[in-house]
Amino acid sequence: MARIVMKFGGTSVGDTNRIKNVARRVKAEAEAGNEVAVVVSAMSGTTNQLVAWTNEIARLHDAREYDVVVASGEQVTVGLLALALQDLGINARSWLGWQIPFRTDGIHGKARIGEIDTTIMRQRLAEGQIAVVAGFQGIGPDNRITTLGRGGSDTSAVALAAALDADRCDIYTDVDGVYTTDPRITAKARKIDRITYEEMLELASQGAKVLQTRSVAMAMQHGVRVQVLSSFEDKPGTLVVDEGEIVEQQVVTGIAYSPDEAKVTLVGVPDRPGVAGTIFGSLADSAVNVDMIVQNVSQDGKSTDLTFTVGATDLDRAHQVLDGLKGEIGYSDIVSDPGVCKISVVGVGMRSQPGVAKTMFQTLAEKGINIQVISTSEIKVSVLISSDYTELAVRALHTAYGLDADGDG
Amino acid sequence: MARIVMKFGGTSVGDTNRIKNVARRVKAEAEAGNEVAVVVSAMSGTTNQLVAWTNEIARLHDAREYDVVVASGEQVTVGLLALALQDLGINARSWLGWQIPFRTDGIHGKARIGEIDTTIMRQRLAEGQIAVVAGFQGIGPDNRITTLGRGGSDTSAVALAAALDADRCDIYTDVDGVYTTDPRITAKARKIDRITYEEMLELASQGAKVLQTRSVAMAMQHGVRVQVLSSFEDKPGTLVVDEGEIVEQQVVTGIAYSPDEAKVTLVGVPDRPGVAGTIFGSLADSAVNVDMIVQNVSQDGKSTDLTFTVGATDLDRAHQVLDGLKGEIGYSDIVSDPGVCKISVVGVGMRSQPGVAKTMFQTLAEKGINIQVISTSEIKVSVLISSDYTELAVRALHTAYGLDADGDG
Repeated sequence: MARIVMKFGGTSVGDTNRIKNVARRVKAEAEAGNEVAVVVSAMSGTTNQLVAWTNEIARLHDAREYDVVVASGEQVTVGLLALALQDLGINARSWLGWQIPFRTDGIHGKARIGEIDTTIMRQRLAEGQIAVVAGFQGIGPDNRITTLGRGGSDTSAVALAAALDADRCDIYTDVDGVYTTDPRITAKARKIDRITYEEMLELASQGAKVLQTRSVAMAMQHGVRVQVLSSFEDKPGTLVVDEGEIVEQQVVTGIAYSPDEAKVTLVGVPDRPGVAGTIFGSLADSAVNVDMIVQNVSQDGKSTDLTFTVGATDLDRAHQVLDGLKGEIGYSDIVSDPGVCKISVVGVGMRSQPGVAKTMFQTLAEKGINIQVISTSEIKVSVLISSDYTELAVRALHTAYGLDADGDG
Repeated sequence: MARIVMKFGGTSVGDTNRIKNVARRVKAEAEAGNEVAVVVSAMSGTTNQLVAWTNEIARLHDAREYDVVVASGEQVTVGLLALALQDLGINARSWLGWQIPFRTDGIHGKARIGEIDTTIMRQRLAEGQIAVVAGFQGIGPDNRITTLGRGGSDTSAVALAAALDADRCDIYTDVDGVYTTDPRITAKARKIDRITYEEMLELASQGAKVLQTRSVAMAMQHGVRVQVLSSFEDKPGTLVVDEGEIVEQQVVTGIAYSPDEAKVTLVGVPDRPGVAGTIFGSLADSAVNVDMIVQNVSQDGKSTDLTFTVGATDLDRAHQVLDGLKGEIGYSDIVSDPGVCKISVVGVGMRSQPGVAKTMFQTLAEKGINIQVISTSEIKVSVLISSDYTELAVRALHTAYGLDADGDG
């Protein structure tokens, strides 16, 4: 007997028929003798509608009231899924964030998870009752509803799995696992059977949208075995596990791309201490996330060029911040380019295998693709290229690292 | 300075523009120096959609999960209205049933209100904060969401007004007050300026849909001054008050009709003690509400006919119950007629003015309308007639009791 947390996203519970389908899957796990807690998102489209209403009402939100509105979506789904399970003869009850309670800090709209009291839920699970838990929501220190930020239900599920000491956290979604790259770009993409937390974390943060980055970080921290699998097909997915559980190590496990990037170059920045601190400090204060940074070597010892990337949606704000700094810093020009894409190759195997970056640069050069910025971590190499070459680059790299599926793929 | 509870129904908060309109009305009351708590329903259509989903999922509901689903509608409205008020520069916060807490018993789906803890809300009101309260919902002894039954937000508002010792409870709706009869039946219907609790209670329970019967009973019990007025027009409505506050008493205040009735006659019922108790006890056990009852005088001392009315939607169930009793009781036949309508004339003045019933019977006789069943209370006379004559009867009685508006009315 195992204790399992199952998580179903918005598409999987998109209408009442799909909710009934989810109930059948949950029933199968329960009848296999497992203790089961199910975490669900809002029905697809619901959260967007709720957010749209808050925007129609007011442009600036009190995040506490925003949370009250958007958390209602998951409330509907837990009630409906509990009813669907009962209709199949399964003992089930819904749990809202405040009922568990699923405690968070008071940062409404993007709360961080604190203590989850599972005392009563564990008793109920032991009695054979299925717990149907509202994802995305918790309760803050002020006794008001908090939400975890968009896509937060993945994180709810992993946190609940950690709190329950669950044997596995199964994330059901509309794809059947994690792929070596986006199957929409190359039909040769292969489903990965097992991937390490570190790799999944890099892939998620580099643009692979199958799991929320925060949920992977939390799974890694608490050692929660996560499985990504399809809610529509009945076959094994991708298991996210400790490095030790992976027998045959690939050098490169997957290739991610992030098209929503913009490049900013500050031309003629005075080459004196403290300038970079002023610039990136001001951007951070305005909640502009800066990713890759390159500073050219100063030719004359007096000024230099500073290039970095920001999220495409943050570009206007970055411009405002930098315009405001012009007097203080004294650069000569700002040049920005929203037409860029970040391509990342990820694999824990590259720790022990040199030459991964070299293969990347050679492959792109052979295709005539110019690399604008490079950044690396222990298990990742990322490059910034013109977004015109995104598909070409991903396909070429997928082949170069030996990731292509055999045969008709 | 007064303390006022304002209540807005589903139509009044049907979209974001209407919610902004409600916010402007609330702001006006607050800026007049009043402490204001606002109770809101779900956006019109929302509750029906939620109920439809629960029916799609399962025909038999766990009422606890049903409550989780349907209570989400009011959660959306309170968040949006709080945001709309804040956008007008007004200090406001939303309150869900479990946050107040608004305690009820554990009868999910039609819970009865218990204690409402207004300690914190009173502090906030005194500080100038508007309380935006979710109607229709509370929290049961099991720490789970309860709902009060359809239309329960009126009752929430009156209960909150009582708990807050509010000076007035203003029920905003899509009509501008209580009328002498349904204006769709006669253009001569007049808006009533002041009506007693007793009259309002009779009118509500006899088919006038402007206020929920329970809310009127609660207002009467706690002496809450209720005003019914339009959320779309800016003019005084109808005040529901103690009899002592009404200066000029009409004999008849209003005429209600209830078309959703069905008449059942049990023919040849043995005339022995306990039979009526068996019949009506069994109907009550099956949750069939019996209204008017007439037992004919036994001609032969052996058997009699028993006629009564039930809600039209309960007719099938009544037949089932009576079929099951046939062996035990031994009546000869059941005859039922869904084509009947109950017409009621209501007025506290009839306590001191005899002849009200006589006027009713004469007026109907003059129009050739046959009276099938009669029932009376201290301030009401009801008759059952063929539903073909509903409009004719209402118009004739409205004129006969001098209720017609002057001129072009």
